[in-house]
This record gives sequence, structure tokens and C-alpha cells, in this order.
Amino acid sequence: MKALVADGGLRFVPSYPTPVPGRGEALVRVRLAGVCGTDLELLGGYHGFRGVPGHELVGDVAAGPRRWLGRRVTAAINVGCGRCPVCRASGPEHCPARSVAGILGRDGAFAEYVAVPVRNLHRVPERVSDEAAVFAEPLAAALRVRDQLAVRTSDRVAVLGPGRLGLLVGLVTALDGTAVTLLGRPGPSLANAAKLGLPATEAADERDSAYDVVVDCTGDPAGLAEAIRLTRPRGTLVLKTTYHGERGVNASAVVVKELTLVGSRCGPIAPALRLVAAGRVPVGRLGEAVYPLEDGLAAFEHAGRPGALKVLLRP
Amino acid sequence: MKALVADGGLRFVPSYPTPVPGRGEALVRVRLAGVCGTDLELLGGYHGFRGVPGHELVGDVAAGPRRWLGRRVTAAINVGCGRCPVCRASGPEHCPARSVAGILGRDGAFAEYVAVPVRNLHRVPERVSDEAAVFAEPLAAALRVRDQLAVRTSDRVAVLGPGRLGLLVGLVTALDGTAVTLLGRPGPSLANAAKLGLPATEAADERDSAYDVVVDCTGDPAGLAEAIRLTRPRGTLVLKTTYHGERGVNASAVVVKELTLVGSRCGPIAPALRLVAAGRVPVGRLGEAVYPLEDGLAAFEHAGRPGALKVLLRP
Repeated sequence: MKALVADGGLRFVPSYPTPVPGRGEALVRVRLAGVCGTDLELLGGYHGFRGVPGHELVGDVAAGPRRWLGRRVTAAINVGCGRCPVCRASGPEHCPARSVAGILGRDGAFAEYVAVPVRNLHRVPERVSDEAAVFAEPLAAALRVRDQLAVRTSDRVAVLGPGRLGLLVGLVTALDGTAVTLLGRPGPSLANAAKLGLPATEAADERDSAYDVVVDCTGDPAGLAEAIRLTRPRGTLVLKTTYHGERGVNASAVVVKELTLVGSRCGPIAPALRLVAAGRVPVGRLGEAVYPLEDGLAAFEHAGRPGALKVLLRP
Repeated sequence: MKALVADGGLRFVPSYPTPVPGRGEALVRVRLAGVCGTDLELLGGYHGFRGVPGHELVGDVAAGPRRWLGRRVTAAINVGCGRCPVCRASGPEHCPARSVAGILGRDGAFAEYVAVPVRNLHRVPERVSDEAAVFAEPLAAALRVRDQLAVRTSDRVAVLGPGRLGLLVGLVTALDGTAVTLLGRPGPSLANAAKLGLPATEAADERDSAYDVVVDCTGDPAGLAEAIRLTRPRGTLVLKTTYHGERGVNASAVVVKELTLVGSRCGPIAPALRLVAAGRVPVGRLGEAVYPLEDGLAAFEHAGRPGALKVLLRP
């Protein structure tokens, strides 16, 4: 099958072995897959991943249990052992033996086919387009912030870093009437926030300690320092992006301001799909371009441009 | 008056100006003052503090409002403006214009007299000895961890760094039946924990993710990395010590494990005094030596020795 393969760089491979689903797995024929910031980082050596990247997908079940055959699906990306205390207590996201589709020890969706554990599958409602369903996974990651924090609707919330994930976090945070401001440097990303109707401001113009809750979506150590500056004493700072290696967090500032820092990763797919199905989050306005798999390198280059919205791959 | 003065180093000054209490302040004649890790750090340049250090004290009100005259007291250390939104909402600890006795912009207690705002005074019950009352402030700092976290009594809690503050955090955490383990390197500090009846183990022997809650009292970047290792996914890590400058926190690990990091500083004096008065925390066993103020340098040297417990100064 056709696939993009990360091996330090990124290559299009016309004849990659089609995955053979293991026990409890289904084979999914990929309709569309989204390129995310983590994918771009993989090329920089994040996690030392080698294989097929891609963890945002919509596709059809081509082989697997009868009740799933032919179903249009999206999927959760963490695969745990299912037996250890961690899996039993809280699911696969933190299983010590886990694999993560397209990120850690398991091929992902930038290919014609991907093997997915049946328990990770989520059926996509008919009225949801492929172009919307492919946002289920990043939207779930944005929802994870809600699940972790008790944000009050009167809290002053800022999202620092108005990239693809930051915009989704902003849209999701605003769902219940909470006032959320997208912060960043002047440029096309910040302009994207305004286009989506989200208040957007230059971070450098904001005064110290201006926000009760700051979600750092910059993936950048300078961004994290700025997030610490912007969070009020005893406020909450969410680390929403993966950071590549060690970062110099000013631990002293965390103590003196008595901040709460919360690391945040993957979220729940089912409510994300419900939001998409109900049209509550305008994910259709976040898609920017669709490339064939053969043009994967161009797609990655496009996704890396300042202000680029979601770039999709169609095998 | 006699005083110890920090000015890059530490000097005994036989004729330092006796403080003149300002509006709303009392003059306290110091009976005893405790040397804490922050005092030792001040000499290393922490906060660039210059003046009289010392923020753990018991003394007598020598001048001030009539109802306080002659009272034996201890004191909270943060002094806010009392008028700003921060002070009104949550007290002086995070007032942008605050001073902190012996740490930031205000002389402290390593002297014959110290000026203290009346609203910071706490009367010491008669049955509490000076040697116990002087622990009110560090014990309050230990209690702050309880106030910030909803630790469940079935949680596995570790305190990393069995120094003076770590021991107090351990004792306070164990009050309600919570199982707490003191972790550190083999040596006299870890032996102190065992002498106080607290389970004590070498940190390096503990497996990854062994604890639900880890309180880092090491004040050391290597300690913080170890604390991250020891905290379970989705667990809580309390940063209980001040760190001198930037520290390399592995922000990526915080995200991947979805940890909650909580900065923790000063705590409530009144419940700390109640604990001391009720004999619930054996602070008497934590005092190690009393030095006259003239021998302040020797006292600091003593307090800096591995495994040293509380060193007190008597003006």
C-alpha cells in the first residue's frame, strides 16, 4: 500500500506492507487523515518514532468483526495492554506498555490502511462529513482541558498560541459562555483567531497575572515563560503541547506564585464527535487544504507555514 | 540593637538601628528565632535580600496597641498593602506590593527587635514553650500543602527531601492516617525521618510512578526530576521549596504523564499553633541547638550541615 514513512525524515513509500490486523483489531481504509503539530515534531526526532505517522483519521472498516464491517469510523490513538492496574483504573493513555498510533510503537494513518483495536473505534454519524470527522481526535484533545479543570464561566481564560490546537481549545472553552482570549504574536495565526470570532490580542500587550487560567499551546519554552507571567498568583497553567526535550521552567516562579501546572494530552473522542455532529464547533472552517498521500512532503511543508490551518491527506 | 545583617554575606552588627514601628505595627522583642533553608539561600543571593533575615520567631510585644503589650507572640511573614484586589480577595501572600519579613524588603527576626504589623501577630498560648512556638511558621508552611491538595487518606504520598521542612510536611501529612514515606539519599537526613517514626526509604530504590502525590522538598533540580519520575501518571507533584533561579523542569514529561504541579509557599499560622499547643506534632524533637545572636555565623554553618535539624538564635 501507499504510505508516508518517518525514519528521521519523511518519505513517500509506494509499496509499504499493508498491516495485518492482530487479535481484537480491525483494518481501517483511510479516507482522510489530518497533519498535526506533533507530526511535524516527529520529523525533528520527537519520541524517536519510526514508521507511519498520522493519528487523526476518518476511514471505513475493511476487515474486522462483522458489526464493524463497512462502518465509517474515527479512532482513539492510545493502545494499552488492557490488563495492568493503570489500564483498569483509568484507561490506556498511561499504560506503561502502551503504543500510540503514529507516535509511539505503532503505525498510524498516513497510509491507505491502518490497523486499529476495535475498542478504539468510534462510529461516525452519517450527517458528519469526512472533513469534519477527521477533527474528532484534536477536538478531543482540546476537550481534555475541560475534563481536567474546573474552569468557572466567570474565570478569565487565555489560550497562548493560536495555532490549530490553540484555536480548538479556545472554541471548546467558549462553548459554555466562558470568556476566552487567544494570545500570540502579531501575524496570521492571531488573525485566524479573530476570523473564528475569538477575541485575539498580542500576548506582549497583556499585563502580568492578567488571567486565572492560561492554556499554553505554543510548544515553545519562551511561550511557557510568558504563560507563567500571564497567570495570576494561585492560578492554573495548562501545558497542552508536547515539548521536545528538557525545557527551562522557572520552578521558583511556580512556587512564589503558587501556580498549579497541569499537563494535558489526549481526550475523549465520543463527546468530540457529538460536538461535531451538533455543529457546535465550526471545524469546517479549520480545514485549509487536502493533499494526496503522494504529496505528503508538500503537505507537511504547508502545515508548517505560519498561520496554516488543518492540512489533510487523502490516500 | 544587636542584629545579623545579610549584605551578600552575613555579619553580626552590634549597633543596628532599632526598628521604629510604623502605623499599624508593633515592636516585638525577639525571644527565639529559627534558621531555615531560605535563610541559608539568602546568603547565596536569593531574592537579592539585604537587611536582617529571620522569619520564624517567638517574642514579646514591647510597643504597640495596649491589648497586645507584653503578649507573647509569633507572626505571619507576608505584609500586603491591604487595599488591592489581591489582598482583599485572598490575603497578603500575593500582593504585588508585598514585603516579606526577612526575605523581601523588610527586616526580620535575627535581631533584638523586629517591627511586625499588628494584623500579622498571633498570640502564643501559655502552655506552649518558646522552643515549640518558634515552629509555628514552618509548620504553617507544611500545612499549606494540606490546604492546597485534596489528599485522600488512601493515597500513596511521598516527601522527597527529608530536611527540616520535609520532616514537618511528613508529620503533618501523617496526622489523619495518610501513609507517607520520606525519600532521600542515604545519610543523616533520612535517619532523622526514621527517628521521628516516619517510614524512610532511599529514593533511588523506588520504582517509577510509585506515588499518587509527591512533595518535593529538595530545593534541587535533580530532586525535581526524581520527583517527576516517582509521581504516577495523572498524579500530583508539589513544589514546596524555593528554587534559586531557573530550573530545567522536563515539561514534556509533565505533559506525557499529565501531572499536576502545584507551587506551595506560606501557610496558616493559627492552625499550626493549635497543632503545637495540642502536642500533635513533636516539634520539640526537631530543635537541635540554640546559639546567641553573636554566634550567628556559627549557627548558619551548623544549620547547613547534612542532617542538621532546627538551629535557633537567641538575641
